[in-house]
Amino acid sequence: MLPKAVRDLTSELTALPGIGPKTAQRLALHILRQPRSVINRLAETLKNLHANVRICTVCYNLAEDTTCSICKSEMRDSTLLCVVEDALDVEAIEQTHAYRGLYHVLGGVLSPVDGVGPDQLTLAELVVRLKQEPVRELIIALDHTMESDATARYIAKQILHDDITVTRLARGLPTGGDIEFADAVTLTAALQGRKSVAA
Amino acid sequence: MLPKAVRDLTSELTALPGIGPKTAQRLALHILRQPRSVINRLAETLKNLHANVRICTVCYNLAEDTTCSICKSEMRDSTLLCVVEDALDVEAIEQTHAYRGLYHVLGGVLSPVDGVGPDQLTLAELVVRLKQEPVRELIIALDHTMESDATARYIAKQILHDDITVTRLARGLPTGGDIEFADAVTLTAALQGRKSVAA
Repeated sequence: MLPKAVRDLTSELTALPGIGPKTAQRLALHILRQPRSVINRLAETLKNLHANVRICTVCYNLAEDTTCSICKSEMRDSTLLCVVEDALDVEAIEQTHAYRGLYHVLGGVLSPVDGVGPDQLTLAELVVRLKQEPVRELIIALDHTMESDATARYIAKQILHDDITVTRLARGLPTGGDIEFADAVTLTAALQGRKSVAA
Repeated sequence: MLPKAVRDLTSELTALPGIGPKTAQRLALHILRQPRSVINRLAETLKNLHANVRICTVCYNLAEDTTCSICKSEMRDSTLLCVVEDALDVEAIEQTHAYRGLYHVLGGVLSPVDGVGPDQLTLAELVVRLKQEPVRELIIALDHTMESDATARYIAKQILHDDITVTRLARGLPTGGDIEFADAVTLTAALQGRKSVAA
């Protein structure tokens, strides 16, 4: 049987998403082979994680301060507000360099089965922001799943202001995607959203 | 951009085998969502790893003491010695409950490309053990790869005692394996190793 310290680490790594017992064992042995200094640095990074990360009080993105670097920036277009599920979605959209508006991080999507109702998300805070900020377009950048669709409809219903347009990200074939392997729902969306080709 | 603490953790997780930047980000965010007590426990487990794990001075398996629990046991058959690559292989063979002999952990296989020669492995120590211990059969339980095959031949050459039989694990189709999807080398080995069926 592996030493207790290795089994302890294995069982803690198994608790991480997408890591099964065999992968956890392999990771634990890899970590064991590292010099003590590398392991200690990882341990310190973990210990300091909560102390050094905050939640932005405006958009609920991860932040190093009370507000995040995007909300602080003077360069962003405050008439555009993009609703996303979590901080990784903000990161993915930022990396496109195609969006210069602000964000609102929901913290999840409505999922009654998992016990996630409107109160578990930052939906009320979103409604307050829409009243206070000069938002003209609300872009709902949620995945295309059943729960996200329900969440998008819920948000659209909450927006009573006539002067705010609510949009969703386009659905269609991904770049490099193969028509032959596309599922019927995606292909239907791609057909319905077809665009004329400039001559 | 994600807070520095999250980016630091992401880059340290990316250094682990089989974990790419996207998986690392997802893991970092998952860890961030855990209570501080869970994160601190993981950090402590990491810090104590080196202090609580030793290498068995007899078989080079991982141990909690100077010798591992297998070498200490009075119940093992000391005429059988099984050569494996690392501690995870010991673990896998132990879980079969089909082997009651002792082990010798090589710490790798010969791989000149990666700079692994006989001196990086516990091969000299193996030869000493074979002279001192009452071993009758040496079971080479290495994977069936080119490097392992070379290592197995190297070990067989070192064994000059006529009274030690050197064996390797059987090659063939895995249980549940499909002939249709088996590679030619495996299928050839399965044909060559065919056994008569009891009537």
